[in-house]
Amino acid sequence: MTVAEIGEHALLARILARLPRPSDSVLVGPGDDAAVLAPGRNERLVVTTDAVVEGVHFSRAYSSPADVGHRALAVNLSDLAAMAATPRWALLSLVLPGSWLVADVEDLVDGMAALAGRHGVSIAGGNITRTEGPLVVDVTAGGEAPPRRWLTRGGARAGHDIYLSGTIGGAAAGLEMLKSGAGDASNCIVRHRRPDPRVRLGMAMGRARAAKAAMDLSDGLADGLRQIAAASRVGVRIDGDSLPIDPGAREWWSHRGIDPVIAAVRGGDDYELLFAVPPKSGGALRSVRRHVSDPPLTRIGVFTKDPLALVIERAGKQDALPEGFEHFAHR
Amino acid sequence: MTVAEIGEHALLARILARLPRPSDSVLVGPGDDAAVLAPGRNERLVVTTDAVVEGVHFSRAYSSPADVGHRALAVNLSDLAAMAATPRWALLSLVLPGSWLVADVEDLVDGMAALAGRHGVSIAGGNITRTEGPLVVDVTAGGEAPPRRWLTRGGARAGHDIYLSGTIGGAAAGLEMLKSGAGDASNCIVRHRRPDPRVRLGMAMGRARAAKAAMDLSDGLADGLRQIAAASRVGVRIDGDSLPIDPGAREWWSHRGIDPVIAAVRGGDDYELLFAVPPKSGGALRSVRRHVSDPPLTRIGVFTKDPLALVIERAGKQDALPEGFEHFAHR
Repeated sequence: MTVAEIGEHALLARILARLPRPSDSVLVGPGDDAAVLAPGRNERLVVTTDAVVEGVHFSRAYSSPADVGHRALAVNLSDLAAMAATPRWALLSLVLPGSWLVADVEDLVDGMAALAGRHGVSIAGGNITRTEGPLVVDVTAGGEAPPRRWLTRGGARAGHDIYLSGTIGGAAAGLEMLKSGAGDASNCIVRHRRPDPRVRLGMAMGRARAAKAAMDLSDGLADGLRQIAAASRVGVRIDGDSLPIDPGAREWWSHRGIDPVIAAVRGGDDYELLFAVPPKSGGALRSVRRHVSDPPLTRIGVFTKDPLALVIERAGKQDALPEGFEHFAHR
Repeated sequence: MTVAEIGEHALLARILARLPRPSDSVLVGPGDDAAVLAPGRNERLVVTTDAVVEGVHFSRAYSSPADVGHRALAVNLSDLAAMAATPRWALLSLVLPGSWLVADVEDLVDGMAALAGRHGVSIAGGNITRTEGPLVVDVTAGGEAPPRRWLTRGGARAGHDIYLSGTIGGAAAGLEMLKSGAGDASNCIVRHRRPDPRVRLGMAMGRARAAKAAMDLSDGLADGLRQIAAASRVGVRIDGDSLPIDPGAREWWSHRGIDPVIAAVRGGDDYELLFAVPPKSGGALRSVRRHVSDPPLTRIGVFTKDPLALVIERAGKQDALPEGFEHFAHR
């Protein structure tokens, strides 16, 4: 049965039946004009919105509907994590081609609901709209942070160490593997299909005041460093030899004569977190690492004074940081 | 210059330059991973999301980019008004075809910013994404209401009077006028292009406890009555002769041999508000009418006991309420 055949109201009923029960702070959940929420006292509300579009962010050839639902929420939870917020609720706006199967819409919702459940996030409402074009899944997520414990991109200062969570390059290499028909076995493919937002790490870094700035790597490390440097008006010097590159991605690119460092720095979709950590925050950082050991944190460089100097150092030689990925630009 | 030519970062800079300064309760505004907001003490957060899609909700032949920006925010403010919430902030998610002109994107943002300014709404953040399909403008809006003063669709009881704000039929007739090339002079066309969310009225009805339930008429009166009846498990009996039909719409349909009552009851996009008002709330209702005289409120019928009885009465004769508009169904 297609979306056009079932009709809007029946489709909505199917979707609502698949969502977990909202938490007690959701006073009015899905189905009314809006959701009503009661954030805690003395909390700050943090909200973000991010869409995934068929043919731009995913291909149905490489991702299942459940992968798409997972990704649409994951990219928003990653934004909240980059603000050091505790995720609480999400709104799901589905822009659906009439030809989509209802069963696929249900799988998409299941993929999203499973990730929401793991992070205690209530799907508090949303909207369904038809389109003559590709699928768009637009999610808005809201969370909380105590006053003055949230992290922006603007707090990095010269002398702060640059820390990176987990590994980079996996998602980009995974997409290349899928396109080349290399099979489904690699962990890189999982990283492309099911990005894992670093929710606990982001919250811990904010609560412990271990970091002064943070952002997530949706468009890759090179783009992330540029964004945080611009917002904080600092430069960066990265140690290219220290970068935690996904081993599967390193092997994939090495075998193809591609420089793994450049490819990993430019590749997007890893959704790792980047932090600016003052040297004197060592104690707070160790405390975070004791409480959140996965993913690990790697020191990859330092923020510097000159906002125009974006530098990667390899074997003692300095180069300009490669360009990041920009969705709109011709290339 | 097209969206594809300018690139994402430059486009974002253009958009940010056109937004009014956010209010003091917006601690972090557009440009970071997420917005940070500080809702007031003892307030409830109300959030909603609604998208407008080119070719489904509007046609570029009949609406300017500024109309589209206005509409995308208006439909969300209307949802907040239907919950009796004070609108505070909005997030703008733009899913843009690469061929759109940057100037048109700017006009769209201007149309949205003008409406936001009139209602004291801060555009607190958003997202830009490219698409190979039609334009999608997805807005999430957030507002506040004091505890227990918000209105859902579920609070109507048998014996409550049904009140409707303003007039219906104008937007539907306006779209027909545009399609027939009837010119731009009618107020009906303005109602199609620039729906006016009933923000002050919704807030006043909630604050005064004049109503027990409310919803907005995005998909028309017939759909609205069905939704509120289903959520409240009551029936409805409408006085077809009392309906406040837009005079221009009535004339348009009458001249074409179309029954204006049926057309106005089925037609969508008026974004008026529907309320369930207990008979004993007369004092509160009069107080609201003194403070908010525009749009006027009309009593159009009564909620009844039998949830299956959805009835329209005309010249003493009862008929079944016409079907509402459903975006997905074949017709």
